[in-house]
Order: sequence, then structure tokens, then C-alpha cells
Amino acid sequence: MENLVKYVWIVFCASIVALGFAFFFYRRMLKEDEGTPTMREIASHVRKGAMAYLKQQYKVVSIVFVILAVLFLIMSIFHLQNGVVWFAFLTGGFFSGLAGFLGMKTATYASARTANGARQSLNKGLQVAFRSGAVMGLTVVGLALLDVSAWFLVLYHTGLLELVGEHATLTTITTTMLTFGMGASTQALFARVGGGIYTKAADVGADLVGKTEFNIPEDDPRNPATIADNVGDNVGDVAGMGADLYESYAGSILSTMALGAAAFATIGAEMQMKSILAPMMIAAVGVILSVIGIFIVRTKEEANMTQLLKALSRGTNTAAILIAVATFAIFALVFGTQDNMWWHVSLSVVVGLLAGVIIGKSTEYYTSQSFKPTQKVAESSQTGPATVIISGIGLGMISTVIPVLTIGIAIILAFLCANGFQIAFTPENLSLGLYGIGIAAVGMLSTLGITLATDAYGPIADNAGGNAEMSGLDPEVRKRTDALDALGNTTAATGKGFAIGSAALTALALLASYVEEIKIALVRIGTETLDLGNRVVETANASLIDFMDYYNVSLMNPKVLVGVFIGSMMAFLFCGLTMNAVGRAAQKMVEEVRRQFHEIKGILTGEGTPDYARCVAISTKGAQHEMLLPSILAILAPIVTGLILGVAGVLGLLVGGLGAGFVLAIFMANAGGAWDNAKKYVEEGHFGGKGSDNHKATVVGDTVGDPFKDTSGPSLNILIKLMSMVSIVMAGLTVACHLL
Amino acid sequence: MENLVKYVWIVFCASIVALGFAFFFYRRMLKEDEGTPTMREIASHVRKGAMAYLKQQYKVVSIVFVILAVLFLIMSIFHLQNGVVWFAFLTGGFFSGLAGFLGMKTATYASARTANGARQSLNKGLQVAFRSGAVMGLTVVGLALLDVSAWFLVLYHTGLLELVGEHATLTTITTTMLTFGMGASTQALFARVGGGIYTKAADVGADLVGKTEFNIPEDDPRNPATIADNVGDNVGDVAGMGADLYESYAGSILSTMALGAAAFATIGAEMQMKSILAPMMIAAVGVILSVIGIFIVRTKEEANMTQLLKALSRGTNTAAILIAVATFAIFALVFGTQDNMWWHVSLSVVVGLLAGVIIGKSTEYYTSQSFKPTQKVAESSQTGPATVIISGIGLGMISTVIPVLTIGIAIILAFLCANGFQIAFTPENLSLGLYGIGIAAVGMLSTLGITLATDAYGPIADNAGGNAEMSGLDPEVRKRTDALDALGNTTAATGKGFAIGSAALTALALLASYVEEIKIALVRIGTETLDLGNRVVETANASLIDFMDYYNVSLMNPKVLVGVFIGSMMAFLFCGLTMNAVGRAAQKMVEEVRRQFHEIKGILTGEGTPDYARCVAISTKGAQHEMLLPSILAILAPIVTGLILGVAGVLGLLVGGLGAGFVLAIFMANAGGAWDNAKKYVEEGHFGGKGSDNHKATVVGDTVGDPFKDTSGPSLNILIKLMSMVSIVMAGLTVACHLL
Repeated sequence: MENLVKYVWIVFCASIVALGFAFFFYRRMLKEDEGTPTMREIASHVRKGAMAYLKQQYKVVSIVFVILAVLFLIMSIFHLQNGVVWFAFLTGGFFSGLAGFLGMKTATYASARTANGARQSLNKGLQVAFRSGAVMGLTVVGLALLDVSAWFLVLYHTGLLELVGEHATLTTITTTMLTFGMGASTQALFARVGGGIYTKAADVGADLVGKTEFNIPEDDPRNPATIADNVGDNVGDVAGMGADLYESYAGSILSTMALGAAAFATIGAEMQMKSILAPMMIAAVGVILSVIGIFIVRTKEEANMTQLLKALSRGTNTAAILIAVATFAIFALVFGTQDNMWWHVSLSVVVGLLAGVIIGKSTEYYTSQSFKPTQKVAESSQTGPATVIISGIGLGMISTVIPVLTIGIAIILAFLCANGFQIAFTPENLSLGLYGIGIAAVGMLSTLGITLATDAYGPIADNAGGNAEMSGLDPEVRKRTDALDALGNTTAATGKGFAIGSAALTALALLASYVEEIKIALVRIGTETLDLGNRVVETANASLIDFMDYYNVSLMNPKVLVGVFIGSMMAFLFCGLTMNAVGRAAQKMVEEVRRQFHEIKGILTGEGTPDYARCVAISTKGAQHEMLLPSILAILAPIVTGLILGVAGVLGLLVGGLGAGFVLAIFMANAGGAWDNAKKYVEEGHFGGKGSDNHKATVVGDTVGDPFKDTSGPSLNILIKLMSMVSIVMAGLTVACHLL
Repeated sequence: MENLVKYVWIVFCASIVALGFAFFFYRRMLKEDEGTPTMREIASHVRKGAMAYLKQQYKVVSIVFVILAVLFLIMSIFHLQNGVVWFAFLTGGFFSGLAGFLGMKTATYASARTANGARQSLNKGLQVAFRSGAVMGLTVVGLALLDVSAWFLVLYHTGLLELVGEHATLTTITTTMLTFGMGASTQALFARVGGGIYTKAADVGADLVGKTEFNIPEDDPRNPATIADNVGDNVGDVAGMGADLYESYAGSILSTMALGAAAFATIGAEMQMKSILAPMMIAAVGVILSVIGIFIVRTKEEANMTQLLKALSRGTNTAAILIAVATFAIFALVFGTQDNMWWHVSLSVVVGLLAGVIIGKSTEYYTSQSFKPTQKVAESSQTGPATVIISGIGLGMISTVIPVLTIGIAIILAFLCANGFQIAFTPENLSLGLYGIGIAAVGMLSTLGITLATDAYGPIADNAGGNAEMSGLDPEVRKRTDALDALGNTTAATGKGFAIGSAALTALALLASYVEEIKIALVRIGTETLDLGNRVVETANASLIDFMDYYNVSLMNPKVLVGVFIGSMMAFLFCGLTMNAVGRAAQKMVEEVRRQFHEIKGILTGEGTPDYARCVAISTKGAQHEMLLPSILAILAPIVTGLILGVAGVLGLLVGGLGAGFVLAIFMANAGGAWDNAKKYVEEGHFGGKGSDNHKATVVGDTVGDPFKDTSGPSLNILIKLMSMVSIVMAGLTVACHLL
């Protein structure tokens, strides 16, 4: 046993290595030249705006965290939760916020340097931007692994759990750690929603008046909202995404650990420990392979776009193939080769990896202007903005087919692989199969270090373009940063595929964790046995299937069905609230920009200076104000459902939210992506090109797509998991009191 | 027992009474004057176009029906279905099509007469339009009741079922009759999708070029697509809606009958018979009360809008209140007052009625320009079309909350009322509770005769307006028909609430019917006992809960979860395909209209005559071509899911489709309605009024909303139920062979 625990120390070390490399890349980036005084000044404006926003955001979020922590403390007094939870919750939120903060800090330092690099060559620009993206990627995975391994070691080696009156079994340890995941999810939701509203209010506001009404180009310094727009890229696409993926990554590892501890509880502590180690080990190896992948991304000096894309793909593909191979070795080491377990579970990892790649490719197909679907959306601009919207919505809805079928097949395969291809529905097969689904999610996210690097460098390049435009650099520089940005869109598609696919798998694993937590909660309040009608089982030894029987979690139970309805509705309500929030905030921005254009003399000729700060303030206030309601609703929904409909209702809620939320998320992300690129396709000279009526029609599509793809859509991933996490943490309350 | 069967004859007579009154109103409408020769000519053009379309449509649909009927025949040879099914299926389709055809025939005769009536007075116009709508309402309910009661009598009294080797038990009779529901659903889906694509292609095409590019008013005879647009109203909003509501109405009665037969199977044939009678009796009394309600709708000659609305509301409200009261009397009569059953089930009916009213009111609140939400959408036009779209989507998504919560509460209440407020999850409580949910759906639709009349008269008034415009009548006439049309929008909102709410409840009832059909199929292929692990039960006596155990239909089963994913996706895929179909067909229409404006000389000055027929042909071809794929997918999805994932997967599919589909349907219907009325609000003179840039922005919203509210959204209701019906009919195949 102690023999196995030393592997956790290896994981801990891997996290330190990741953070070390992140620091190394960060220092190297800082050594680059930040360019002309104007470039420095603009970068400093954006940096200050972004930091000011984050400070404000963290203040608001802290209040929510303190309230929730106090609630957990009270629950622990009434024996509805254990006494470590409130603190684990706080650390999860803290680290998630830290990952976002560090990533954003790096990005705001990197953008001017990337623009300056692009003055030299395309390749130099790529190097600066990509390595800065790598800082973010490695920080996210490093902090997550650090948090997971450190918590495990603390709970395992110190008497912390005994101190609060709990038995420090592996099951208790891993379920306690899940609450750290809830902290990460809560923080991530606020970051995504707040950041998403901020960035899109600024973006939509800047576009609607600047581009559409006054025909001035993007990022033009005469546009008062332009600084806010660039700040938005940082707080939304960098800090928001960082917190989001931190949550996905940590969530998949934590839920799989909890499932493993539960699945092998009857077999023995050693097997439990092995199954807990497995996801951590894959993640640790994935981190190291990601670092290798990042170093592989190199091109010769005069590389063109195709070569750049190849260089990036080489990095991510190498990491992915290596992890697939390494998995078999790790599992042979951890599980031993005396039975088939090692290669069965390894196959589940490969299933997860493959599913991620397929979803990524499908996203690319549906959203890239190199393919038919997006070109058709561009074509529909010939009949005006209405048909652009109709065809984009049609495309987005149809694009859900491949990801859903892929995830469906992956679920079945990961389940069957892990339990040795047993179709029979026994408690053992079920537990092992669910563990396989969890481990597939971990596999899908194992190369996050490098995929996130290719994802995060996009907004950095975008900001570099903004800096170049505002600093009046040679148009050639802007062209290069645009090329980098476009490249980022393609790689980001793959990243989004991993994020959304893993969310679906993780959410399934969390369903099982919820039932395990119900078991713990029942024991805690003293329910020793469960009466299943024709037999009585001890609560502590009851299987997942017994709990399904006990709570009648079948599709004939109206509580389950009502839960499904409410869950589906929550996904729509959440999107509706965030869409409207962007609409309202953008409208205020439009009014302000129009006011400035009319009131500040010489603003259009470049003689007057716009009041950038005021636009920044509007976006900040709008985002802070609007993010609260949807986020709090997401936390309250599972609690209220539990209090009224009980366990069966909560499970219905989670499944309904997962089903509708997953599909809705893909729809919104892909429709938004396609509108964005349909506009780019027209700008490349098709169907009349820039400035034509067709172009204006696609700008309408792009504007509608902004909140689709950068606010509502990506927040759904987090919503799905947060609702599960809240249910898990609140299981004690649900068990103790419910109306029906 | 025979004593009870005579009540079925009463139902049969009620259906004849309804059809008699429909014929009476039809004859009275025909006696009205059709107006000037121009008016007659235009009406005849529209009528011919509509009939030609329906003929073409029925040809295509017939082929699908023949193929499916042959499939059922083959299945019956292999003992996977009984030998009456193929024929029952055909009659369901035939009667559904007949209801649409008769309604449309009436509407096309009524529009010119309504316009002519409006020349006299607003009230006269209302009378003609409303009474013609009543023809449709009474035809739909009359034919449905006729079909239901006649089939029951035939199967009960003749040896038809014995002839094909089945025992003519009440369970077999009612489940066989469900396949007649599948025929109605299949026909309804084609009618809604085909009609929806037709009408919106014409509408969008006419608007985009006529209104937006050439600034000519709606229904202007210079617009080549204007006849197609008016034909579309008839084939989509009248024939499509007629078939749709025929399906809803018949479906709710049939599924409740089947549930009743199943729920009381163990108690005895007499109780079974009573529970089968109950939904039919409510429907029969509802028909009679609807006729009374229709006669109540009268106003004095110089009535203004408020008075007209009051007159309509008086009619529907009287019918609703009377049915609530009558229900108690009917159930006291049918069930007897020796136990509490009669008032328990009556309460379920009242729950259904109330839920329908609340959903209707919420629809009205979110889509009428008299309230804040739609006014906000209109306000957002100040910042262009993009924000109109964003705020409309936001509104639509948020508007799902009240209907979902209402249906959720209604499900729980109807369930608890019917089983005597028993929370315990026993087979008896469950069966009775589900029966209560079914009966709530019947209650909700019991006044369909009159609500459909208030619904159907909208498109008639709309067409009357078109006729008035094209015939060059006094603008005052157009104003009056517009007022009638607007009034129709308000009352139609209530109608839509009933349709969508009842779909959710009926779909739940169908879930239980599916499990009953699985039982029959198992017995048919010779599976006499079910091994439930710790006990063995006889298949024929197994309860719903036993089947949940046997097939592991719990939320931990990956097959169920994958089914939920696929079901959710089906709702989106279906909408995506229909949205794109409208987009494509509209694009062809736009090109044709543009071509005519450019090539036909003097068309804009009124000297040249547009080629109306060509636009009609384009819409017809587009609709026929595009309706096939989504409709066939809807039929195939449950079959393929069943063959791969088995019973658990199918139930997951149905629940996922129901959850996501219900919410998506409300979202699309309400967003579309709000965009439509936001445009009207601007046209009434707000935010710049007609012709302003803000108006143009709302026209974009209205155009996007067209397929939302009239094609994709309403088809989802049918999709949900059709997938259930297909699963039921195909249960034998699923049981006999499935991969996992």
C-alpha cells in the first residue's frame, strides 16, 4: 500500500515540473522586446484594464464563496457534510482563479511582444505567442495536479479527516476531494459567464457602431470600445477559458478517482488505491509528454501557414500518440499484468482520446471556411441577414449529430472495454464500466497541457493584432497576426472538442459519484439498512443498482421525468439569461460609443481622443451585474430540486441538463464559429467581399454568434458539471429532508 | 359490461353531432356572398393552388404509408405485431389527412367571404371567419371521436382480432388502436413539415424581396410570390395544424385508453372498461360543450376589438368551466361514487385544464406586444438586426421556464390526484398515477372543438386580408381583417399552449404504453417468465416496475444515457433540417422573385402581370423534396436505436427527445411569436415606425422567426409523439432482436 502511495509523490513532482516549465517559458517570453513606446503604452492600458476587471470579479466571487463555505460549515455541524469540505471548496476556487489569473497575466505581457515578433517574421510571432500559450497550458495542468496530489497526500497522511470525526477511508478521501472540484466549477462558471459577458458586450458594441455604422476597421484606435474589446479577449478568452479547463481537467480526475474508490471498495484497499492512482498517473505522464510536444513545435524561419499548422499538429499528435502508448505501460505498472485489467482500462483511455479527436475534427468541418457548411452560410448572405441567421442555426443544429453519436459510441465502448466486454448488468460490471467512462474522460484531457497551449495562443495573437493596428504598425504585421489568429481558430476547434466531449463523460462519472455520496450521507445520518421491498441490504454495502431500486430512479417515475424536464429547461434558461445579459450590456456600450462619436470632436479624423476608460467601465459593470443571476440559479436549481423531488428528481435533473445541455452547447458553439468564419470567408473576397451588402449580412451573423460561441455555449459545459457537483455536496441535505 | 359499452355508442353519436354541426356551419358559410369578381378570382387561384399542393402531398405520403403498411404486414407474419395493425395504421393516416383537407377546403372558401363580410363590419367579418374556423375545429374532434369509437366497437363486437389469431382482450384492443394513432402522427408530421416548409418558403421569399428590397407592402399583387404566400397559409397553418391537432387529440385519448386498460388489468374487466370509457366520455361531452361555446360567441353589430376579444374568451372560458364541472358528473356516472376514484380522477382533469390555461397565458405574455418582453425585442431594433435576434433568442429561452414548471407541477399533481395522493412507489400507485397524467392531457384538449375554432380563424382572416389587398378593396377593409388577424394571434397563443402542453403529457402516457406493448410482444414471442435476479415473475402479470428492473431502465444504465443523448440530438437535428429546408426553398423563391422583377416589364408599375404559378410550383417542389428526410429520420431513429440499444435505449431516446424537444419547441414558438409581434409593435408607430431602419431590423427578426414558429417549432410536438408511437408499433422487433 505504502508502496503505491509513493506514486502519488511522482504525480506531485510532475506537477512541479509542469509549473517549472511554465515559469521557464514565462521568463523567456518576458525577455522578448515589447516594441515601440506606443506598443508598450497600449499593452499597458489593456493590462491595467484586464487586471482591474479581474480584481473586481474576484471580489464579487469571494463573497459568494464565503457564503457557500459558511453554509458547508453549518451543514457539517448538523452532520450533513464532513468538516473538511468548506476548506476544500475554497482551495478549489482559489486555484482555479489563480490559473486564470496567471494565464491572463502572461497573455497581457505577451501580446505586444507577439506583435513585435511578427514585425520580424511569421515564425517569430508564432514562437512568442505559442510559448506564452504554453505558460497557460502548463499552469492549468500543473496547478490542478498539484492541488489533487497535495490534497490526497494531506488527507491520507495527516489525521485531518479523523480530526473532524470521519474515517479516513479511500472512499471518504476521494469524495471529500470532489468538493474541491465544486470550488473549481463555481469559480469557472463565474469566470466564463462574467468574462464572456464582458468580452462580447465590448466586441458587439464596438462592431455594431464602429464597423456597421461608421465603416471603420476592427481595432481602429478611433473606436472608443477598442481597448475594452482587447481587454475582453483577455478576461474572457484567456482567464475564462483557463478557469474553465482547469475545472474540466481537475473534475475528470477527481470524479474518476472517486468512482475507482467506490468500484473496488468490496475488493480491497490495494485495488482501490490502484484505481485512484490510475487517472492521476495518466495525467502526470500527459503533463511530461505535453512539455515534450511543446518543444517539438518548431519551424524553419520562412515557414508558411501550412508549415505552421503542420508544426502545431505535429506537437499535439505526438503527445496524443505517446500518451496512448504510455497508458498501456502505466497501467501494466499500476494494475500489474496478472489479469486483463491493465489493457482493458487502457483501451478505455484510447477510446476517450479518439472520441476527442473525432469531435474536434467535426467541429473543424462545420466551422471552418475551408469546408462546405460554412461556405453555404456565407452564400446565404446573398439573400440578406435573415437567411444568414437561418442557415447558421440550421448548420449548428445539424452539427450536433457527429459529436453526439461519437460520445454515445465512446460511452458504450469505454464501458465495455473497462469491464472486460460484459453486457450483463451486474453491480460489478456497472461500477467497472462507469470507471471506464471516467478514465476515458481523463484520457481525452490527458494532453491538455499542449492542446490548451494551441488554444490560448489564439487570443494572444488576436490581441497582438489589436496592438499592431492601434500602434499604427506596418499592415504586413497585422496580416501576420491575422494569419496566426486564423491558425488559432483551427486548433482551437480541436480544443473545444476535447472540452465539450470530456464534459459529457465527466458528467456521467459524476452521476455515479452522486449516488456514492448519497450512500455516505445515509450512513452519516444513521440509516444503516435499505428496505428494497423483497430484501434488505446494509446501506454501506449497497450497490449502485440497489440505490436505483431504493429511490426508484427509473424512467417510469414521474419525479425522474419532471427532473428531466427541469434539467433541460435549466440549460435553455441559463443560455437565455446570458444571451440577454450580453444584449443588454452591448446596448449600453453601443449608446456610449455613439455618444462619444457625436460629442467628442475630431474623433473620427483622429484629432480627438476617445474616452476608452468609460467603455472599459461599462463592460466591467455590465459583466459584474449580469453574471450573478445565472450563476446563482445554477447553484440553486439542484438544491431546490433535491428539497422537493428528492434523489430521483435530482438524478433526473442532472440527466436532463446533461442531455439538452450537451447538445445545446455544441449547437451554439458551432453556429457561432460558422458565422464568424462565414464572415471571414466573405472578407477573403467571396460573394462581394469586404464592404458589400453581403458582408454586412455576415457581420450580423457574426454578432449574433459572439454570445453563442463565447458566452452561452462554453458556459454550458461548466453548468452541467457544476449542477452535478452541487448535488454531490448537497447530498446530505437532500437525503435528510425532501418533500416528495 | 354490455351496460358500459353502450356509452361508447354515446361517444359515437357525439362525434356525429360534431360532424353535423361542422356541416351546418360549412353550409351557412357557403351561403355568404364571395364579393366582387376580382375577389372570387383571387380566391379561386388560392384554392386551386392549395388543392393542387395537397393532392401532390398526399401522393408522396401515400407511398410512405404503403411501404410502412407492408412492413407491418410482414411483421405480423413473423408474429412481431398483430394482423390488424397495418390497417389501423392506414385509417389513422387517412382520417388525419381528411381532417386537414376538409379544414383547408373550408378555409379557402371562407377567406373571400370573410373579406366581403369585413366590408360590411368588423363583427360580420368575425362571424364568417370564426364560424369557418369552427368547421375545422368540429371536423377535427368529430372525425377523431368517430374513428376512436368506431374502431373500438368494431374490435369489441366483431371477431376481427380473433380472426388474426389474437385474444380480443381490452388490453389488446386498446394497444391495437394505438397504431391508428401512429398513422395519425405520421400523416401529421408530413403535413406540418411539408406545409410548414411551403408556407415559410413563400412567406420569407415574398418578404425578403418584396418588402425589404422593393419596399412594396405585404400581399401586394405586384409581388409574384403573393399567391404562393396565401396558398401557404392554407396548406401550412390550416391543413398542417388540422392534422397536427387531430393527432394530439386522438393520441391523448388513445394513449389514456391503453393506460387505463393496463392499469386496471389485474382488478377486472369492468374496471378496465370504465377507465377506457372515461377519456372518451370527457371528449364526447367536450364536443357538445364546444358547440355551445361556439354559439355563445356573438357581439353586437358595432363591437370594437376589446368586445370581440371578450366575446371569443367568453366562448372558450364557458366551455372550459362547463367541462370542469361536467367531468365530476361524468366520472361519478362512469366510476360510481362508492369509492373516491371518481373525484380523484376528476381532479386530474382539472389539473390538465388549468395547466393548459397557464401555459397559454404565459405564451401570450411572452409573445404579445402588449407586454414588456416583446416590447424589449422591438426596442433592441435600435441597435440593429443582430440585437433583435439576440434578444429574441434570449426571450424565447427564458420563456421556457413557466411552461416547464407548470407541466412539472401538473405531472406530479395529476399523478397524485389520480392515485389518491399516494407517494409510495407501488405498481398500483404508479399505474393509476400514469393514468391520471393521461387523463390530464385529455382534459387539457377536451375543449379543442372551440379552441381550435379560435385558432383556425386566424389564418382565414390573414388570407382575407390578402384577398382584400389584391382585390384593391377599401383600405378600411384591410384594417379590419388585420384587426381580426391580430385578435387571432392572441387566441392562437392559448391554442398553442394546449397543443404543446398536451404533447408533453401524452408523451409521458405513451412511455407507459410502450412498456405495456413490450409485455404483449414478449408474450407473443413466447417469453412466459421474466427472471428478475432474486425472483421470477410471469410476463403476463409483470408490473411496470418489474419491467424497469428487467430491462434495467435506470439512470445508471449507459444504454439509457446514450438513448437520452440521441433523443436530445434528434430534436435539434430535426429542427436543423427543417430550418435549412426553409432556408433553401426560400432562397430559390427569392431568386425567382428577383428574376421576375427584373425580367417582366412593368411589373412594379402594375402594368405587367407576375407569373404567380411559377412561385407556387417552386414552393410545392421545395416542400415535397425537403419534407422527406426529416420525417423519415423521425421514423427510423427509434427503430435503429431499438435494434442496437434495446428497450432501455429506446426509453432513453424517448425521454431525451421529450425533455429537449418540449423545451426546444416552446423556445422556438415563443421566439418566433415575439419577433412577429415586435415587428407589428414597430409598425404600430413605436421606435420609428414603418419604413424606418428599426422596422427593417424587426423584419429580419420576423423572417428568422417564420420557420421557428411555423415549421420547426410546431413539428417538434409531433416528432415527440411519433417517435413514441413508432417505438410502440415496433416493440415486437426490438424485443426479438437487439445488439446490446
